[in-house]
Amino acid sequence: MGPGPSDVNPRILEALSRPTIGHLDPAFTDMMEETKALLQYAFQTSNRLTMPVSAPGSAGMETCFANLVEAGDKVIVCQNGVFGGRMKENVTRCGGTAVMVETEWGRAINLNATEDALKANPDANILAFVHAETSTGAQSDAKALCELARKYDCLTIVDAVTSLGGTPVLVDEWGIDAIYSGSQKCLSCTPGLSPVSFSDKATDKISNRKTPVQSWFLDLNLVMAYWNSEGPRSYHHTAPVNSLYALHEALLILKEEGLENSWARHQKNHEMLKAGLESMGIEFIVPEAERLPQLNAVAIPDGVNDAEVRSRLLHKFNLEIGAGLGPLAGKIWRIGLMGYASNTDNIKLCLNALGTVLNESGYNVDIEAALKAAG
Amino acid sequence: MGPGPSDVNPRILEALSRPTIGHLDPAFTDMMEETKALLQYAFQTSNRLTMPVSAPGSAGMETCFANLVEAGDKVIVCQNGVFGGRMKENVTRCGGTAVMVETEWGRAINLNATEDALKANPDANILAFVHAETSTGAQSDAKALCELARKYDCLTIVDAVTSLGGTPVLVDEWGIDAIYSGSQKCLSCTPGLSPVSFSDKATDKISNRKTPVQSWFLDLNLVMAYWNSEGPRSYHHTAPVNSLYALHEALLILKEEGLENSWARHQKNHEMLKAGLESMGIEFIVPEAERLPQLNAVAIPDGVNDAEVRSRLLHKFNLEIGAGLGPLAGKIWRIGLMGYASNTDNIKLCLNALGTVLNESGYNVDIEAALKAAG
Repeated sequence: MGPGPSDVNPRILEALSRPTIGHLDPAFTDMMEETKALLQYAFQTSNRLTMPVSAPGSAGMETCFANLVEAGDKVIVCQNGVFGGRMKENVTRCGGTAVMVETEWGRAINLNATEDALKANPDANILAFVHAETSTGAQSDAKALCELARKYDCLTIVDAVTSLGGTPVLVDEWGIDAIYSGSQKCLSCTPGLSPVSFSDKATDKISNRKTPVQSWFLDLNLVMAYWNSEGPRSYHHTAPVNSLYALHEALLILKEEGLENSWARHQKNHEMLKAGLESMGIEFIVPEAERLPQLNAVAIPDGVNDAEVRSRLLHKFNLEIGAGLGPLAGKIWRIGLMGYASNTDNIKLCLNALGTVLNESGYNVDIEAALKAAG
Repeated sequence: MGPGPSDVNPRILEALSRPTIGHLDPAFTDMMEETKALLQYAFQTSNRLTMPVSAPGSAGMETCFANLVEAGDKVIVCQNGVFGGRMKENVTRCGGTAVMVETEWGRAINLNATEDALKANPDANILAFVHAETSTGAQSDAKALCELARKYDCLTIVDAVTSLGGTPVLVDEWGIDAIYSGSQKCLSCTPGLSPVSFSDKATDKISNRKTPVQSWFLDLNLVMAYWNSEGPRSYHHTAPVNSLYALHEALLILKEEGLENSWARHQKNHEMLKAGLESMGIEFIVPEAERLPQLNAVAIPDGVNDAEVRSRLLHKFNLEIGAGLGPLAGKIWRIGLMGYASNTDNIKLCLNALGTVLNESGYNVDIEAALKAAG
């Protein structure tokens, strides 16, 4: 129950361990086509360029920036946590200029400040932001941010690593141009793959770059030749065959449940955990309206030893919860209720285990009352 | 029996499907330490910076170039197949200049031509070459090439994707500075990871770069902070946990067999396959002394339809063999005897299946004689 990897559904582990076949075997390329269609469903898009990058979410982020940013480009980057800072790193390493819009950590991105930056930088051509900040548990208004970007003629790059499958991510309806996610959060797949999707406008920009993409491995002009069934499918790199079996299974499971049902389940379980934690006197750091149901960031009670509690949870209850990152290190815990792991058994386990360890630390909580509050 | 991914040992598939735990879980970081030690054994090195990159071999290649090449650097790149060409792409995309030393495809890299290039370019600071050309089946003299590099004060970047585990790769003895491999060839692990190792000299160059590495995801200055047990281990990206279980198991299997025994097995099985194929009149394209035992590149007999034969092998015998790449497309087949797949059953399957399909194509071969020749 950390911030990811989440618990993996046994069906996915079984798929993962199927015999490896060749990355150009027709049976495998058929599965690639199904995976693309399932990803289009997950992202709610008809974007043709929708596929998993053969590496973790950080490489998905880099795929978006390395392909869309050219030297000299100006990118407005909204930061309200760790991952906005990583976006800035990506922009500058691609030779671009990042104009930062800072929002307090733990809050949704400030729309007014973003519009001010767009207004003040008419030469900016991309707006980049994190939809679901894994470092703080805050969810930003992606729809409104995309509207702003369009108003000021910018493409959007959106981090949906933690949101995809857990809360609505409507790529076409919101008009997102480039989006990346991770396999190991609300899809509950093993870590190592990063689903991405690009609008036609973004794809055009990539096809018409003045300079080559600085990464050969992530150059979509080349990767497309392997993932696109319309031309002759040509080898680019050896696909992570078994990991793709697993992602295919994870996406099938999501489709079987239905996106809306998955979103509702994440919300309901969040509310149960929240009721239990609040009954223990533990407070959320993100205002209710801006909270991610799949990532519960709570303040560590005064006088409680962060590392000791997490270590006891792990060793005594076999339960991992996440530490804070950056300026939030030692100040918050991040409790994931993601994908397969978002269920009532885990909520009870967490309340019981955390309550027990807190009581042992001299912080007095009523576990029975918390479990009852959670329902 | 293609050029990789090779058949995966069931032990490795079992390890792959173990329950996913956190990438900072002490049980997992202990396994990371064991994996590093096992990789040092596989590479025959005491290099501290030895670890798997969280993405396929192409990303391992890019890790070496993106970290070691800075804008303005001149790199001598030896090309005798597809992957030397990819090295050139990497150099130029890092802002470096590639001086190409071309050798006929299917031959080991020409040492005299390489020395001429080193002599003519005293400002070059890196020599890059492919030890085992997966596209042609040729093995180059890595030891001699490293000696040349040292003589002309160059660091070396070596592609050992197909050689590691199958033929000797002696990183310390040969004085290799940067090397990358793949999980899916002679280690018989699932595809998706790229073991790398860097000498202290290479590590120093990376630590003292004038400019940041252009890839955030592959920046070893950051990745090291996660893989290095000496400092506080800090999160960089979410490690592909299950794939690393599999690599750990694959390396354990290699250690149990012993490197020398693995090399001898690959050689013996190559000789058996070779005797069988030659008895059918099928000829190798690489001179015997320069041949990789794990990748048998043979000329397609005149009048035989390449795609049809491969398709029938796949559909009738469930057997994949590799096509030619680039200028060798349609001219050669590449038959892998890699790792777990390098065994006598596969040799018999291949001779029997290929013989049957060739006979159906009107190319007359004596299958019994071929099996007998193979022993």
